Amino acid sequence: MSSTTGQVIRCRAAVAWEAGKPLVMEEVEVAPPQKMEVRIKILYTSLCHTDVYFWEAKGQNPVFPRILGHEAGGIVESVGEEVTDLAPGDHVLPVFTGECKQCRHCKSEESNMCDLLRINTDRGVMIHDQKSRFSINGKPIFHFLGTSTFSEYTVVHVGCVAKINPLAPLDKVCVLSCGFSTGFGATVNVAKPTKGSTVAVFGLGAVGLAAAEGARVSGASRIIGVDINSSRFEQAKKFGVTEFVNPKDHNKPVQEVIAEITDGGVDKSIECTGNINAMISAFECVHDGWGVAVLVGVPHKDSVFKTHPVNFLNEKTLKGTFFGNYKPCSDLPSVVEKYMNKELELEKFITHEVAFSEINKAFEYMLNGESLRCIIRMEE
Amino acid sequence: MSSTTGQVIRCRAAVAWEAGKPLVMEEVEVAPPQKMEVRIKILYTSLCHTDVYFWEAKGQNPVFPRILGHEAGGIVESVGEEVTDLAPGDHVLPVFTGECKQCRHCKSEESNMCDLLRINTDRGVMIHDQKSRFSINGKPIFHFLGTSTFSEYTVVHVGCVAKINPLAPLDKVCVLSCGFSTGFGATVNVAKPTKGSTVAVFGLGAVGLAAAEGARVSGASRIIGVDINSSRFEQAKKFGVTEFVNPKDHNKPVQEVIAEITDGGVDKSIECTGNINAMISAFECVHDGWGVAVLVGVPHKDSVFKTHPVNFLNEKTLKGTFFGNYKPCSDLPSVVEKYMNKELELEKFITHEVAFSEINKAFEYMLNGESLRCIIRMEE
Repeated sequence: MSSTTGQVIRCRAAVAWEAGKPLVMEEVEVAPPQKMEVRIKILYTSLCHTDVYFWEAKGQNPVFPRILGHEAGGIVESVGEEVTDLAPGDHVLPVFTGECKQCRHCKSEESNMCDLLRINTDRGVMIHDQKSRFSINGKPIFHFLGTSTFSEYTVVHVGCVAKINPLAPLDKVCVLSCGFSTGFGATVNVAKPTKGSTVAVFGLGAVGLAAAEGARVSGASRIIGVDINSSRFEQAKKFGVTEFVNPKDHNKPVQEVIAEITDGGVDKSIECTGNINAMISAFECVHDGWGVAVLVGVPHKDSVFKTHPVNFLNEKTLKGTFFGNYKPCSDLPSVVEKYMNKELELEKFITHEVAFSEINKAFEYMLNGESLRCIIRMEE
Repeated sequence: MSSTTGQVIRCRAAVAWEAGKPLVMEEVEVAPPQKMEVRIKILYTSLCHTDVYFWEAKGQNPVFPRILGHEAGGIVESVGEEVTDLAPGDHVLPVFTGECKQCRHCKSEESNMCDLLRINTDRGVMIHDQKSRFSINGKPIFHFLGTSTFSEYTVVHVGCVAKINPLAPLDKVCVLSCGFSTGFGATVNVAKPTKGSTVAVFGLGAVGLAAAEGARVSGASRIIGVDINSSRFEQAKKFGVTEFVNPKDHNKPVQEVIAEITDGGVDKSIECTGNINAMISAFECVHDGWGVAVLVGVPHKDSVFKTHPVNFLNEKTLKGTFFGNYKPCSDLPSVVEKYMNKELELEKFITHEVAFSEINKAFEYMLNGESLRCIIRMEE
């Protein structure tokens, strides 16, 4: 048992005091884990668009002061009451959504949308007692997505923690916590392209490139990248993208362009932008008879998906996915194994690395469109 | 070989001379089948809404004079050049869509939307030579859906003919040509409810009741019928419908009513009306995480399907189907066998029967909402 078990830990955390303002490195108190919670020493975390989105808080409920961060890898420091699945020393990935293993979703083979631990972007406290485990001089600091990994120690519900192979390098597999798994899973778990099939990927950011990686691993013969930024094509080739279409280069809808170059449409498409017009194009560009489109990108809350219903009657299928349909605790360990077996490549997603004290640089890299993933090293 | 082989056959046909006017019994000439065609002696035909729809020709291209009819059973009288799959004497069901067995759709396990023989409601002639096989005193009468079964003899492309068990009663299995298979297949081939699941069926006409029959056969525990005509519930019970919701009885959207009575939504829904609002409700009423909605009803050409894309991201799936995803030649014989093995019931769909000379009565029964299927007996 660690000497800190049952004690408040004082450590560094990057606190977002208000929307859009640089994070401030603070000394915070992290309370011990309560029932069904674990306290994790974070070793590596990375920055995802979702962190930036809620940091900017444009249109979202502003919840401040808050400790952001949800892609990370670490080691369990101590566990709370009734925790049987994890023990101190376990290597883990905290995840923004979870598995209670009791509800209809957790018992369904198809769903990963746990009733209890499903993502909740507004909640800034722990489920058990509706309180925060973080404070500064007694003043609570809110949690984010149940993970708050921009802290040297954090407290997470046991259902939101994947126990992984301790040999896996945490500075690489930490990206499996969110973005990579979301895109990769959308392809391999939901779109399921077969060998030799054609796949379109809308949006060539980290999630879209992970979707392309899923198509590459599945043996797709053509992977068509669609993005309004042509400079992304060069990088995308590394992820298996074979062709590039920039909708701005054409004076007709991109779904028509794709239908022309694929003799009627692609077999599968994956939408990773959240832009409503891209969603519609991603659906309409699949082939009738067998085409499947998968929506991944999170849309604006007021957006409306519109299409002619004959597109469905022509036997096109439209699905969406949340976290690539992975159940976090049950499925992520096997994705880590795929990496360990060299079935998938993570290094190419990691374009930058900074020390924790420089975390605001990671925000700059992302806002400037320079980075796919910037790993933040907690130890200086 | 029949004495009529290679000869023009003179026989009775019910001709639609103009939109919405009663069919007129005429003596027509039926030319011999050409390359890849067969001539069929129709024994029983039945009336489907699609016949009425193109007879009324409200909004469709008016193609007159025309011989309607596409649900039928008969016996091959003679075959044209290059026909190897069928021979005189074969018991067959003509179908409004077909299988060339060469195109990508026919080679796909998932699609039944043959490039060559896919339904074409505007075409009034045979594919081979773009001519009609029907005439009156030399004046051509147009075909309908490549079947034109409101005639004692008709000519059909061999790819639109299912050869069935000769022991099957044609006065019953003729309904498998269209409506029954469309609804039943939508459930068993596309929605695929598992034992104990909950299913909603929108529209309790013949196609919707066939969809309910598919849910009953699949062992669904709750089959919720949705219709704006409450008088249909009593009849629907025979088809396995266990509960009834009339959207007019509620002051909130029917998808909310269904979500309330099913703890979040049904597992599967099948939309059989073609009404755009019913389509949207059918999609939105399925449970997140695993729900699948299947569209069957043919929408108005100007209708727009609208929903919030978050419904997809919550892991609801939307599909459509054409002819229940059955490949007509390959799959219908096995549906006939299911009937022969008493795995499905057809008698309850057949509410009326008339002699061919009284075919206009069949239209009246349907227009008055009295009939599910009215069998038209060609022999008086």
